[in-house]
Amino acid sequence: MTIFRQLHNRRFNTLTYLVADSITRDAVVIDATEGQEDDIPALLRQHGLRLRYLLETHLHDDHISAAPRLRKLTGARIAMHERARVACCDQLLRDGDCLYVGEETLDVLYTPGHTDCSVTFRFQDCLFTGDTLGIGWVGSLTAPGADADHLYASVHGRLYSLADEMLVYPGHDDRSRRVSSIGQEKLTNVDLPLACSRAAFLAMHSYQPRPTQNRFAANNQRCVYEA
Amino acid sequence: MTIFRQLHNRRFNTLTYLVADSITRDAVVIDATEGQEDDIPALLRQHGLRLRYLLETHLHDDHISAAPRLRKLTGARIAMHERARVACCDQLLRDGDCLYVGEETLDVLYTPGHTDCSVTFRFQDCLFTGDTLGIGWVGSLTAPGADADHLYASVHGRLYSLADEMLVYPGHDDRSRRVSSIGQEKLTNVDLPLACSRAAFLAMHSYQPRPTQNRFAANNQRCVYEA
Repeated sequence: MTIFRQLHNRRFNTLTYLVADSITRDAVVIDATEGQEDDIPALLRQHGLRLRYLLETHLHDDHISAAPRLRKLTGARIAMHERARVACCDQLLRDGDCLYVGEETLDVLYTPGHTDCSVTFRFQDCLFTGDTLGIGWVGSLTAPGADADHLYASVHGRLYSLADEMLVYPGHDDRSRRVSSIGQEKLTNVDLPLACSRAAFLAMHSYQPRPTQNRFAANNQRCVYEA
Repeated sequence: MTIFRQLHNRRFNTLTYLVADSITRDAVVIDATEGQEDDIPALLRQHGLRLRYLLETHLHDDHISAAPRLRKLTGARIAMHERARVACCDQLLRDGDCLYVGEETLDVLYTPGHTDCSVTFRFQDCLFTGDTLGIGWVGSLTAPGADADHLYASVHGRLYSLADEMLVYPGHDDRSRRVSSIGQEKLTNVDLPLACSRAAFLAMHSYQPRPTQNRFAANNQRCVYEA
């Protein structure tokens, strides 16, 4: 059995996830954001859970992570994709890695495009997609490190090849939606429906890879200072 | 472990669900519709499943059930709420009843309003709501047996009191959406958001209970003739 909570942070309009094994009481939190430093420990105490991992789907430029502070409070390890290269990270993740949540497993799918450190976490029938694939949208391609070709491959090539019933839990939604599925996104995603060809997607975004170093330097600094 | 499939019938634009216990191989199907008499047995064979129940969330006036034919093909029992009173029903359900799907349980929540035999089936973290609660809408109140007061109590009083993370799987969606959650519906349901009072909902629907006998007689006939 699994304990699952979807938390909405009103300040940034972000969605954070807690999943835990109800037998072993091991928990992970995905994309904790500033302001949740009290709520998440309270939730852990309420359910008698031990936080094992603080996971990031990517380095965010729209909010500040609460992971460094929650690490101090809980002793959990911060884990994110190896390309993130931030000083506060305890464990670097690669595509195909598998983390244990008690007796359940959480898989790492490398899904770059919105950033080059974006991953999707798969836990049972849930996909925690961050800003890679949202409800009716895909991640913006405006930040340094964004790559339309990679985003197309991640969403259309990889996520859309999963079962239609797989649930999509994004990192935010500006219309108060909370969940979708691969089947729903293939049919209704405005930015990238299944019918959209790679050429059409790239033409729409005037494909041009962007340099990455500035963004990561900035995020690295922020992350260290917030720790 | 659970096997879960969401099936879309293009002819009626309806959604049908199959859930099964992957250990015991026992399965149930919810709201099978005409035209699925080959697909569902094929799916059962493909996964090596035994169909135990053919469940109906309510008597439908927009399509014909495939349950009677599937019963002949599989030996499964047809079950629906006791108020449906149709001749082809093997098992009458009441609020609080619990059906076994292998070692998992499926609960019956009586949620009248759209019809007076409407139920919601709860299986793990999934709610199969039929036409009671959809994605952004609630069931129409135009058919005989409809009751706005009951619908308000069922959706606002009962379903909205469940955990925000509970998934909502409706009987159809005319915009190709496939899944929602209680939290999402409380925030975004156009017909009945959490903020809508009973008085406002009833005023909107000029509350007047409708007689039920004609509708059930008609459905009863249809069900018998289709068997």
